[in-house]
Amino acid sequence: MPKKRSREDFFRKARKKVKQAISSRDNLLIQSVGAVDELNKSSNLLFERLTEWYGMYFPEFRAKEPTKYVQGVLLIDRKNPDRAAIEKAFGPKTQSIMDKMSSSVGTKLSEEDLVQVNALAVQIQLLWKLRDEIEKYEAKIAKELCPNMSYLAGELLAAKLVAQAGGLKKISTFPSSTIQVLGAEKALFKHLRSGSRPPKHGLIFQHPLISTSPKKLRGKIARSLAAKLAIASKADAISHNFIAEKLKSSFEKHAKQVLGHKK
Amino acid sequence: MPKKRSREDFFRKARKKVKQAISSRDNLLIQSVGAVDELNKSSNLLFERLTEWYGMYFPEFRAKEPTKYVQGVLLIDRKNPDRAAIEKAFGPKTQSIMDKMSSSVGTKLSEEDLVQVNALAVQIQLLWKLRDEIEKYEAKIAKELCPNMSYLAGELLAAKLVAQAGGLKKISTFPSSTIQVLGAEKALFKHLRSGSRPPKHGLIFQHPLISTSPKKLRGKIARSLAAKLAIASKADAISHNFIAEKLKSSFEKHAKQVLGHKK
Repeated sequence: MPKKRSREDFFRKARKKVKQAISSRDNLLIQSVGAVDELNKSSNLLFERLTEWYGMYFPEFRAKEPTKYVQGVLLIDRKNPDRAAIEKAFGPKTQSIMDKMSSSVGTKLSEEDLVQVNALAVQIQLLWKLRDEIEKYEAKIAKELCPNMSYLAGELLAAKLVAQAGGLKKISTFPSSTIQVLGAEKALFKHLRSGSRPPKHGLIFQHPLISTSPKKLRGKIARSLAAKLAIASKADAISHNFIAEKLKSSFEKHAKQVLGHKK
Repeated sequence: MPKKRSREDFFRKARKKVKQAISSRDNLLIQSVGAVDELNKSSNLLFERLTEWYGMYFPEFRAKEPTKYVQGVLLIDRKNPDRAAIEKAFGPKTQSIMDKMSSSVGTKLSEEDLVQVNALAVQIQLLWKLRDEIEKYEAKIAKELCPNMSYLAGELLAAKLVAQAGGLKKISTFPSSTIQVLGAEKALFKHLRSGSRPPKHGLIFQHPLISTSPKKLRGKIARSLAAKLAIASKADAISHNFIAEKLKSSFEKHAKQVLGHKK
């Protein structure tokens, strides 16, 4: 006769399972990838608002980089422009900014109005800073958790792939064709539903050897990278050997062949 | 023969028009209402992430208010709980928190892991602070720009209505039935398209006399408030008389009648 188990026994067991389920390093990785994602979304949303709001004051002001724009918002006071400070930040563009300033069609805003806009700009800088910090942390966990994938594809891309898959154990069971389109689920299901062309790459598009290659060759390189990543994920999750150097050189050799063949 | 105008003349004219279009106080109001909206969205997004992330560490921790939750995240260190500080923030709930802490199924997180979570919590507090500041500023502009609407419906609601309409001049041309459903465009067009029931209130639902009334009476009160708001908006945009006291007492009298009638 099997041993009779008490209610307490089952409770203990359930608690232990919950504990295991949330305790993995994977989960920390998933959380930080998600946080970075949401910090990006938030800062983009607020940055758009900033350009519109500050655009009332100085609509002619443009900057290539969002960071430069925010810097400009905090720096440029149309009433008493501090030329030296602007020069320090914008270098040779200073003259053109000064010219635009003097002929601007922007509204005059009071000190109080500008305080709000500046506070928003500072907030955006803080969001960026936090994102960079969490990204560093994310890279560190990825390097510990999946050294092979990190070496092969870069820590941040490896982290995103693991997070998208839902954990290291899970991604290690995926075939390379799944890893190739991980993150392009929308396009994949559209393909399956309506017969449109299948996606060539999901998240791994972010790898520089794919994103900077000619469009026609990207699919080939993506397939090759995904194949190596599938092997790397198994090494990370199961054997814990470090085999990524071989994988990387073999991938790069193949990518070179594909690219060279074209020329 | 009409006077011949040069290219420069037209340029000057166009510049002047652009200048006018962006210079109104309405536009400042619209920007700040938008910013508050986006700050809310961002902080909600990040708060959700925080609860999930911190939930790995201390899943049993609950708080009624998001502000309390964030305070808890920053305060509660499961390794060395500072009972005095927790008591100060949570009062009589302290014992239950301490109990939950000692029997928690949460993961042990390292110092470094917790630093990230705390940084996120601080960021959320900053976003809330900025939102409150911009909201104050928004209320101030609304009071200047549309004193009648502000007195009648509260500054923040007046600001939102004007922003949703696209300016004070615009809202002053709206009939009261439009003001009543301003902000419920989705439900309104669904009604027009498919014949579902029309919305009873849009943004003005936020008025306490509507949101706290029995569901059946809300439509009546909303119609009455919208009627008074339509008059108030015309006074704000055109005559610049302050007539809101009369409007408010008349609205409140009517609302009382409606509510009393029910009982």
